[in-house]
Order: sequence, then structure tokens, then C-alpha cells
Amino acid sequence: MMQAIGRQARAAAEVLRRADAATRTAAISAIARQIRTRADRVLGANAGDVAQATRLVDRLSLDQARLEAIAVSVDQIAVLPDPVGAEMARWQPANGLDIARVRTPIGVIAMIFESRPNVAADAAAIALRSGNALILRSGADALDTVLAIGEAISAGLAEAGLPASCVQIVPTRDRSAVGAMLAGLDGAIDLIIPRGGKSLVARVEAEARVPVLSHLEGICHTYVHTAADPDMARDIVLNAKMRRVSVCGATETLLIDKAALAMLPAIAAALREAGCELRGDEAARAVAQMAPASEADWSTEYLAPILSIRTVAGLDEAMRHIARYGSGHTEAIVTGDDGAAERFLAEVDSAIVLRNASTQFADGGEFGFGAEIGIATGRLHARGPVGPEQLTTFKYQVRGQPAGSCRL
Amino acid sequence: MMQAIGRQARAAAEVLRRADAATRTAAISAIARQIRTRADRVLGANAGDVAQATRLVDRLSLDQARLEAIAVSVDQIAVLPDPVGAEMARWQPANGLDIARVRTPIGVIAMIFESRPNVAADAAAIALRSGNALILRSGADALDTVLAIGEAISAGLAEAGLPASCVQIVPTRDRSAVGAMLAGLDGAIDLIIPRGGKSLVARVEAEARVPVLSHLEGICHTYVHTAADPDMARDIVLNAKMRRVSVCGATETLLIDKAALAMLPAIAAALREAGCELRGDEAARAVAQMAPASEADWSTEYLAPILSIRTVAGLDEAMRHIARYGSGHTEAIVTGDDGAAERFLAEVDSAIVLRNASTQFADGGEFGFGAEIGIATGRLHARGPVGPEQLTTFKYQVRGQPAGSCRL
Repeated sequence: MMQAIGRQARAAAEVLRRADAATRTAAISAIARQIRTRADRVLGANAGDVAQATRLVDRLSLDQARLEAIAVSVDQIAVLPDPVGAEMARWQPANGLDIARVRTPIGVIAMIFESRPNVAADAAAIALRSGNALILRSGADALDTVLAIGEAISAGLAEAGLPASCVQIVPTRDRSAVGAMLAGLDGAIDLIIPRGGKSLVARVEAEARVPVLSHLEGICHTYVHTAADPDMARDIVLNAKMRRVSVCGATETLLIDKAALAMLPAIAAALREAGCELRGDEAARAVAQMAPASEADWSTEYLAPILSIRTVAGLDEAMRHIARYGSGHTEAIVTGDDGAAERFLAEVDSAIVLRNASTQFADGGEFGFGAEIGIATGRLHARGPVGPEQLTTFKYQVRGQPAGSCRL
Repeated sequence: MMQAIGRQARAAAEVLRRADAATRTAAISAIARQIRTRADRVLGANAGDVAQATRLVDRLSLDQARLEAIAVSVDQIAVLPDPVGAEMARWQPANGLDIARVRTPIGVIAMIFESRPNVAADAAAIALRSGNALILRSGADALDTVLAIGEAISAGLAEAGLPASCVQIVPTRDRSAVGAMLAGLDGAIDLIIPRGGKSLVARVEAEARVPVLSHLEGICHTYVHTAADPDMARDIVLNAKMRRVSVCGATETLLIDKAALAMLPAIAAALREAGCELRGDEAARAVAQMAPASEADWSTEYLAPILSIRTVAGLDEAMRHIARYGSGHTEAIVTGDDGAAERFLAEVDSAIVLRNASTQFADGGEFGFGAEIGIATGRLHARGPVGPEQLTTFKYQVRGQPAGSCRL
């Protein structure tokens, strides 16, 4: 895209070099007029920007209660079982060896995150629980808060007799620090975890020279099958979309069987009542009032009270839609049909696939992991909720016979 | 390095531009004389190159027996348990969900390998066992053989009703194909596995835009502790070094306690008798005849009948040496002391740590994995032998209550 912008600007410069002053004056005046004419459009867009900045203020703002919630979350990680040294498997092959696969820390984890200060405390606690050293790079917006939380972390480490370097916070807003981390700091970093928007994750994936555990977007689907119970379908869709619209496990697209369209009016009414905007295909719009969905809606993670709705001919078409537009995060089927449910659970290739439950269950806490630093959408090392256990690797401890009689 | 060579050549060009013809003639004649003077040195180096080319001929050469061995290896993979769909864990958190973690294929695996044609057949069989599609890039030396094996693979796939594209062989020696694979072929590749020399693996790690499962060098250590049984120490060291010198699990450095040096003469004699060249530090050379080791020896993977020997003050110094010079592959301790052994197994941070057993046990077959495509030396996803199970990922299948009563 940037290359195209550059090429077009270069060509436009040629046009402008030849344009006379009157033409350029006319353009300037026309622009002023157009700004007035489009006041609604500009003010509408501005409201969006202000709303976004307001959400930033909300994400950043701590008070006594939120601070206590951060501390409680750390307390909860303190009582989680420690994964380090846990025996994952143990067996004795025919050669007489005794082989144990034992969890060990990964080593040094670097996390690059954006504006939620609580991420720093959670990540530090989870890293300590899994025995990993941590390097935290905070977004510029939250840096001072994160550094203050960092002082608490350092003091806590010192009380326990651990060096402050167990959890280091990059103390600068200088963007070149990110580049150095992505290059691996001369082999010091074993794993990078980006936590933030799509562009941050994309940059990290494109530039990192060390392994990355990505938390990409969650374009999650709930599929209402013909054999769904109508009330269950309504309740699950409402929860999956509206319980919290800003979490990655929130449903963004409702897929509904053509033969189940009779359930849609009640679902749509419940969603509208909860303040949700609906965007549907033609068949959906024929049975419930909503705006038309565009092609872009199927691949948009709204993280907002908006739901796209698509009618499908049945299970196969639903799974094809998910394979094409989904992000491999979390998908649910609502059905009373065991055969359809088991096919969906077996064939949909997402980190989490659910039957008759809300996609918002995609959460380390709900999974019983105690804590998570995100939902991994990559395919290697860890998928789904990433808790302390997912931040370990393993080694094989092999014990020979006392007489050393294991020979090759 | 290349930059330095360029800078120096540029500076030398300036010198040569100013040198007169007589000076340059003198240089030319002197070079001819020097070639004759150093005949031994040049012929010695040439013998090394020829030996290497001869080893290449050996690695490449198939006969009826070796072909049968390749087929037998594939047969063995055919009877391995299939990992896809296996339930790794299943639990019911307090929220009433039923959560199962189930193995699934990774997707598309690309393997870039060098000159052993059997790798193609093994990799294809292991990929099919784990449900993954495979893209194979053979080294130029072996390409025609690999393409012929590829015809067998395609025919086998067709017999089973599977498309030939399940296992594709890049049909060109063009080096740009590797660059395209490292870029991920527009998102088509989920994982790249390099199999070959250090420079291949380094290039893949530096340039890949997709996850890499590396099989780096094995600088493996055997540590003879004070409390070792002398006969066991001799037998294990001999096996660890000499059973097969060209495998990545072969021991390259023997660490021996100062207090155990009395065992060294017998170990050295056994190794020499088996044709092994020894290179030791001063203390080792004081008790057994061997060449002096240089600093470079401690970080060299010989893959040849050469062993470096270093004397250490005890367990801690041995572990420090391994941490500094080892490649995180496989290390063994020989000792009758349970405390020392358990500390070694717990604290040495390598994929495989053994007590009283040969480092050559670092092998998927010996581990009971049935087959392997290598020993992973990275820290993410898989460590140690990589068999079909290690080429899977997983997903969570979540079943709600029949009444859909799991609510958040």
C-alpha cells in the first residue's frame, strides 16, 4: 500500500507542477466548501476518534478498586500449582532406559504490549510461576504506570531474594527498542509474545527473528444448526456476542441454517434489545430487521456491539465459511444433533470448538488454568489459552540401569 | 566477514594499482615456488576435500539393500499408532463444561534437507502418519533420486485415493525456491524443518517468516564423575563417541573430574584402539597421551573419530562448561552418586539428559517413538526426538451441558 501511495504522489507532483495558480486556487476554495458540506460526515468520524481516545482513557485509568483487582489477580497466580519440574510422562522402552519428560522453563520471554497496565503485573506473575525471566515493553501510553508497577515488582522480587532482572521493563518510549527485541537481543530472547492490535501482531510476526506466540484477532462464529433448541440458541448467541463485546472470544458472526431461520426473529430481538447492531445477508433480512452485510463484515473483528449474520444451507457450508473467514480462535455450534455436533468438533480447525456453549468461554480462567496472558492463535507450541503451563518447555531425563547395562 | 573481505579487497586494489610490473611478477613467481614448497599441506587439504566428496558419494549411493531399508523404515511408520484425534487430556471445570484437548495435524510442513535421499521417504511417511501435507526441498546433489522416490510416493498416495499434492517435491535446483519457502508461500506453510549442516539451519533460522523446528548441531558431553564405576565409564564413553561418529548424539567432549583422572588412561586406551583421535587439556595430557586441545575444540561438532577431553574440578564446573559450550542437545553423567546424578538431570538445560547411559541413546527409535525426523534443539513446541506425535498440534473440544445450561 505505501509503495502505491508513493508512486501516485510522484505522478501527482507532475500534474501539480503543470497546473496553473487559478486551478490550484479553485481546488483550495472547493475544499473549504466541501468541508462545510460534509460537516455531518466529519463530525461523525471525529466522534469515532474521540470515542476511541475515550476508550483509551478507560483502558489506562486505574483507581483503588482496579489496582486492588490487579493485586488480587497476582495473588491468584501465587496459589496456582507450579508447573516447573512436573513429570508429563514416564516410560521404560525395551532398551531398559527409564525416560521421564519433565517441564522446564522456556528461559527469557519478551512481551510487547499496548495500553492495559494490568498486563504487566499478570505477565510478571505468570512468568515467575513458570520460572521464566521476562522483558516487558509497554505501549507509550501506559509506560509511566507500568514503570510504577515495575517498582512494585522489583521490590517484591527483592523481598523474595530474587534479582530485579527477573522482570525488566524497557524504560523508554523509543521505538527502536522494539526492533532490537524483535532481533532477539543477541540471542537473549527465547520467545516473543505480542499483546495488542492487529498491526502490532503483524509487525512482530513479520520482523521477529525469534519464535513468536501470537495472539491474533478472534473472528469467532456461533453456528445455529437446524436441530438447535430455539431458547438455547437465543441465550447462547446473546451471551456469545454481548456479555463482553471487547474480548477476543466474543462472537462476531452468527451462522444460521436456512431451515432454522424461524429462530432468527427472537434472537435478533434479544440482541437489539441489548443494544446490538445487526448486519445480515438477504435471507436473514427477510425475517428480521437489520442492515445489509458487506463482504468485509465476514472478516471483521468488531470488538463492538455489532453482529454479522449469514444464512447457510447446512453444516458443510457453515464449516466452509468458518474455514474461509475465521481466524482459528473459537467457534461454537448450537444443536441437539449429536452427529452434527461431533462432526463440527472434529472438523473445524480452530483452537477451541464448542457445542452448546458460548464462545466467551474461551478464557484461561474458565478452562481452569487459573490465569492466562492471552489466547494463542498460532499452531505451534501452544494453542488457545496461554497460562503458566503453556509457558514451559520440557526435557527428557533418562536414567540408565544402576549397573550401566543399557548398551546400544 | 564478507563485509571485511570486501573492504580489504578495495584497499588492496589501491595498493596493486600503484605496484609496478616487476613487483607483481615477483609475487607470481613466489607463489609458484610456495605451491611446490607446501605440497604436503596442499595435498593434505585435498585429501580432506576428496574424503568429504567420498562421504557425499556414500551418503547419496543407494543399492538394493539400502532401498529395501528405506522401504522397511516406511513400513515401520505404517504400523505406528496414529496420533491424530488422540485425547491428550480431558477435564470438567467448575463451570460445568467438558473440555478435551485433542491432537490435530499442524497443517502444511515444509522440509529443506541436504543429501540423504532416505529423508524424503521417512519424512513423507511421518507427515502422513501425523496428517500433515508436506513440501520437500531436496539438496541439489540428491534431487533426481528424490524425484524418483517422489514418483513412488505419488503412486502410493494414488493407490490409497489421496491426492499427489499431499507430498510435493520441489522439482528444481533453482536456489530462489528456498527463499520463497522461507517467506511461507503466501501463508501456505505452517512449519519449516531444516535438516542439514549448520549453514543451512542458520540461514533458515535467520530468514524464515514462519515457525521453524530446528535441528542444530549436537555438541554432546559425557561427564565422568568422581563416583563413576571405572569400567562403566570406559564402556559408556567408548559407545557414546565411537558407536557411530556421524550421528548428532555422538559425544564430542569428555568432561572428567580431576579426582577421577585415574580412570582416564583406560578410557583413552580403549578409544585409541577404536581409532579415535584425542585432544586434551593439560591435566588430561599428564595422564594419557594425546594432542593438546584448543579453545575451538570445546565448541566443535566433529562428527568424526575425534574426542576433546577437559578436566573439571567437579559437578558445578562440568555443568558450567556444558552451559557455555553445549548446544542443548544431549549430555550424560556417569556416576554412582544419586545426589550428583539428580542435580545433573535437574540442572543441565538440554533436551536430553542421561545418567549412566550413552548419549547415542538420543534417538526417536530408542525413545520408543517408532520413527523420527531429527532431534529438535529449539525450545518451543518440541524438544528432542521429533516423531509423528511431535508433528501434531491440538485443539480444545468443549461440550456444554445437554440443556445448554453453561452460562457465563
